[in-house]
Amino acid sequence: MENNDVIELLKKDKFILYNGIELLEIGEGEATGRMNITENHLNGLGTVQGGAIFTLADYICAAAANSRGKAAVTLDGQMDYIKAVSKGTLYAHATEVFLRRTIASYHVEVRNEEGALIATLQSKVFRKDV
Amino acid sequence: MENNDVIELLKKDKFILYNGIELLEIGEGEATGRMNITENHLNGLGTVQGGAIFTLADYICAAAANSRGKAAVTLDGQMDYIKAVSKGTLYAHATEVFLRRTIASYHVEVRNEEGALIATLQSKVFRKDV
Amino acid sequence: MENNDVIELLKKDKFILYNGIELLEIGEGEATGRMNITENHLNGLGTVQGGAIFTLADYICAAAANSRGKAAVTLDGQMDYIKAVSKGTLYAHATEVFLRRTIASYHVEVRNEEGALIATLQSKVFRKDV
Amino acid sequence: MENNDVIELLKKDKFILYNGIELLEIGEGEATGRMNITENHLNGLGTVQGGAIFTLADYICAAAANSRGKAAVTLDGQMDYIKAVSKGTLYAHATEVFLRRTIASYHVEVRNEEGALIATLQSKVFRKDV
Repeated sequence: MENNDVIELLKKDKFILYNGIELLEIGEGEATGRMNITENHLNGLGTVQGGAIFTLADYICAAAANSRGKAAVTLDGQMDYIKAVSKGTLYAHATEVFLRRTIASYHVEVRNEEGALIATLQSKVFRKDV
Repeated sequence: MENNDVIELLKKDKFILYNGIELLEIGEGEATGRMNITENHLNGLGTVQGGAIFTLADYICAAAANSRGKAAVTLDGQMDYIKAVSKGTLYAHATEVFLRRTIASYHVEVRNEEGALIATLQSKVFRKDV
Repeated sequence: MENNDVIELLKKDKFILYNGIELLEIGEGEATGRMNITENHLNGLGTVQGGAIFTLADYICAAAANSRGKAAVTLDGQMDYIKAVSKGTLYAHATEVFLRRTIASYHVEVRNEEGALIATLQSKVFRKDV
Repeated sequence: MENNDVIELLKKDKFILYNGIELLEIGEGEATGRMNITENHLNGLGTVQGGAIFTLADYICAAAANSRGKAAVTLDGQMDYIKAVSKGTLYAHATEVFLRRTIASYHVEVRNEEGALIATLQSKVFRKDV
């Protein structure tokens, strides 16, 4: 898959659009994205819901994984929550841990505007020829 | 915390309401919930987005964890994706793996209407006195 | 692979033999094993070393995974440590969470002689035709 | 705890000594170690057993975690296996992902002599005052 096709597919993701998440950049095995926190992202305590943070991280991971010329399907994701956050913008950056023929792994860091680490995601994908 | 207070708090979760997820039942260390799949839950391939499935599983896990008389904050979540799904209703059921003074762990199974396993979540929480 | 061939292979595992771990039973997608705690399993605090507990759990997981007629190679393992232990016998029991064509997942519980939960392992394997 | 006390404790680990694992260096939130592969580390296929690789990674993680002036008890470990190896020396290097008051997380990379990535470990510890 060409990166343009990947970006095309990623931009058609309705769950992502509906929840206000944006892809900012995509490179070889890496990607960056953003989520401006709104009322709709908050849990009952008024902090950003874990599922919203996961969705941002997982989407940016998928972008990085699909930059490698094969269709990548997420196999798993190990999320660690570090710090609660209630406003501003969250940024996610995904880098590649390893790239094998059928399996690849990515590490994603989610940070706030001050650069504080909010959460990390370690995720493996299954790679299929397209 | 009384279960009524927990349910009150869980029902105020805006991200959950916005994404059409419902808590059906909450017991001692377990909980059940549901998500009726709509267009807004789909990714670019037309299947339910991983973040939507995670959000359902994580929320039901939080319900189970908060049934135990202490405030439970999610520490991590290990999601395994098993089967893609594109329509119908998803059900999540959380059970307790272990309950210690400050840490507890939950196993969540997400199934479709036919009972097929769609994803599993293994998640640990940090328990604080309230 | 026939179960007899699997057992043959599992019994040739030198690291397992060297560390005093035994396979007790192997069924369809499940297995049970044991480790009698000796001085050599202890860490600097005098409790069983995390690596020893992991090795027991991972080996019993491999036994369960290889009972399914394909060669199963471990892809990952998520270990949760619950309770420290310093003497007696540890038992591990592995059950199948899901079985797909190329990926399967197992849940392993490690318990002491009184049945208390010591650790859990959630592990995925890659399945290859033999 | 002073680093000298930590090193003292780590060096008393019998499981580590018995399995030929060495701590090479310990810094602030990081550590390095080594395992010279012998017959006793091999599984039935003649490659290094997953439990042996985990034990190396987990021990070096514990060294890094205990360099921070509090007693660190391992909470969990997520191991990803990347490449099989059957001889030579394995090196593990642990770095800190985050350090909170009661929880910290470490990323460990296990490499062979040529620097090829063999496995990664993502592990969280619980930190107690001593």
